Amino acid sequence: VLLDLADLDALARGCGVLAGGGGGDARTGLIVARAAIRRFGPVPLVDLDDLPDDALVVPAGLAGSPPVANEKLFAGDEPLRLAEDVERAWGRPADALMPLEIAGVNGLYPLAWAARLRLPYVDADGMGRALPTVPQMAMHLAGVSPSPFVLTDERANTIVARSGSAAWIEELLRASLTTMGGLAACAIYLMPAATARSAVIRGSVTRALRIGRAMEAAADPVQAAREATGAIELVSGRVIDVERRVSGGFARGSAIIQEAGGEGGRLVRLELQNENLVALADGRVLATVPDVITVLDAYTGEVIGTDRLRYGQRVVVLAFPVDAVWRSPRGLEVAGPAAFGIDLPFVPVEELHAAAP
Amino acid sequence: VLLDLADLDALARGCGVLAGGGGGDARTGLIVARAAIRRFGPVPLVDLDDLPDDALVVPAGLAGSPPVANEKLFAGDEPLRLAEDVERAWGRPADALMPLEIAGVNGLYPLAWAARLRLPYVDADGMGRALPTVPQMAMHLAGVSPSPFVLTDERANTIVARSGSAAWIEELLRASLTTMGGLAACAIYLMPAATARSAVIRGSVTRALRIGRAMEAAADPVQAAREATGAIELVSGRVIDVERRVSGGFARGSAIIQEAGGEGGRLVRLELQNENLVALADGRVLATVPDVITVLDAYTGEVIGTDRLRYGQRVVVLAFPVDAVWRSPRGLEVAGPAAFGIDLPFVPVEELHAAAP
Repeated sequence: VLLDLADLDALARGCGVLAGGGGGDARTGLIVARAAIRRFGPVPLVDLDDLPDDALVVPAGLAGSPPVANEKLFAGDEPLRLAEDVERAWGRPADALMPLEIAGVNGLYPLAWAARLRLPYVDADGMGRALPTVPQMAMHLAGVSPSPFVLTDERANTIVARSGSAAWIEELLRASLTTMGGLAACAIYLMPAATARSAVIRGSVTRALRIGRAMEAAADPVQAAREATGAIELVSGRVIDVERRVSGGFARGSAIIQEAGGEGGRLVRLELQNENLVALADGRVLATVPDVITVLDAYTGEVIGTDRLRYGQRVVVLAFPVDAVWRSPRGLEVAGPAAFGIDLPFVPVEELHAAAP
Repeated sequence: VLLDLADLDALARGCGVLAGGGGGDARTGLIVARAAIRRFGPVPLVDLDDLPDDALVVPAGLAGSPPVANEKLFAGDEPLRLAEDVERAWGRPADALMPLEIAGVNGLYPLAWAARLRLPYVDADGMGRALPTVPQMAMHLAGVSPSPFVLTDERANTIVARSGSAAWIEELLRASLTTMGGLAACAIYLMPAATARSAVIRGSVTRALRIGRAMEAAADPVQAAREATGAIELVSGRVIDVERRVSGGFARGSAIIQEAGGEGGRLVRLELQNENLVALADGRVLATVPDVITVLDAYTGEVIGTDRLRYGQRVVVLAFPVDAVWRSPRGLEVAGPAAFGIDLPFVPVEELHAAAP
């Protein structure tokens, strides 16, 4: 399968839906991917089974603050520098790129880089959604080392860092990103294809494409998104309050949506930290991280990220099951509510909404 | 020539005198160098003329805050990691180590690393004294690139950073050092021996040894230091005031020394920023950076760094000419008084003290 210009709109839509409110604005990635494919041609989408066991798989994407990704465009030589430093650090060249997260800009930037490097794009990712920290990766759960990682910024600075400790890698990454203006192109959790087969979330690119294509083809893109993801509609209504602050390097806050149907409508509260973390109504949990909570424009089906929620928007909030890797005890330890400081048990969204017997 | 245990005390003394008040406490480096040479044997001291043109010369030392060097001992695998990352980054192994600065701990730590790596030690350095920032290197004046540099800390974290811009290298270095607890083993300004021959300060190790040996052999080590460096004695007296603050990551402050000879003695003021920057008396400049101003204990000849100046100490302050590279217009731009924010012209110390005609 080749990923070509005609696939990019659908991919961007799908990456938006899967992001759960984070991952930056997929449309920025769309611009960059379109330019790269126009210039360097379409990119082969490959399954891990089609790569030799020892092929070097390079998970890549923008690391840092998603809002910065909406302002700072990377369209230069960063994939070349990333590939050079990967080859120096591993003593062999990259064989394929894989998106770190199939979400927002990060479903599309690494595709642009694959086009530039004339490398295939792996149909998989590390998160199955957007999540804010380095250890929140399927590769981390599988015991793949994040060391060494490679970073490069738009000024042609590059950093390669190694550590025996994943916690230190996170420290080194945060500090490096700060120096690099809050955002950089990143390659981390590199591994041979044989390891990747059981260490990543497979089929993610195809999944995003399927969601996006269903939305493109439908008269009602919101319902199409709901069906394609198997989502539950948590609420349809109007944003009546948004509160935001930046703390600890994260965009935190909350939004309140009043259910359509007049003044008496139910109030649904979303807790935000880069992504949509929890949806609550009348003291009841409607959905919680790591399940995916996505806000769509009620009319156009356009994804509204946490940074673009505004008073007065007419929205539909969907929630759907995250990849099973995050629902395991170890997955919940790393990306469950407690990992975000939220004192709630995780209950799968489909159980929260099961019809009473 | 082999550098062996019997040379280390003299080398440490000489490195202390040449440091100009900075560079950390040479005795910490002495402990580390002694342990390494005891275990791995003596280290060949080589002149750059004795290395092949293409030999990779690796200037190395501790980078960061000198006071931290007095508390945090590096005695582990850092030279091995440094050498590994150098080989990865340059695609060839290091052929010789060279001290970045022949001053304080940094005259001795790289010697310990050379012992461990069984590499020769180059009789040269990058500063001829201690200076606080990355561009304050003879290699910088000669146009050698500081990119890429390698850092490693005692937790086995390593960072390799590249940039087209020396200013960005300084940024990346400072940020990395902060993450690494303020101090790390560093290799920077790597170059082939053919380049090094005209880009470094040559004979520095021999010079430090000569100064140290003269002091060891003398009944009056202060006078021996004066003679061996060609120094002028600025004042002999008692420290009656010390003021210190930390600003912009530097230890700044001043000290006042009352000349021996009772209450009527002259007051000499030292301005400090990691190193001794300027000595003044009665509004007259006695010596100024980049010339070297060194404070010695009047009785023992022990070097007193800027961080160890205390009320009541009996001291002698010496000043002597720095290597000619720093007295050039370009050298003064990088390391003259104005580079430290001091609004004074540089006048060579020997001219300031020339007898009136």
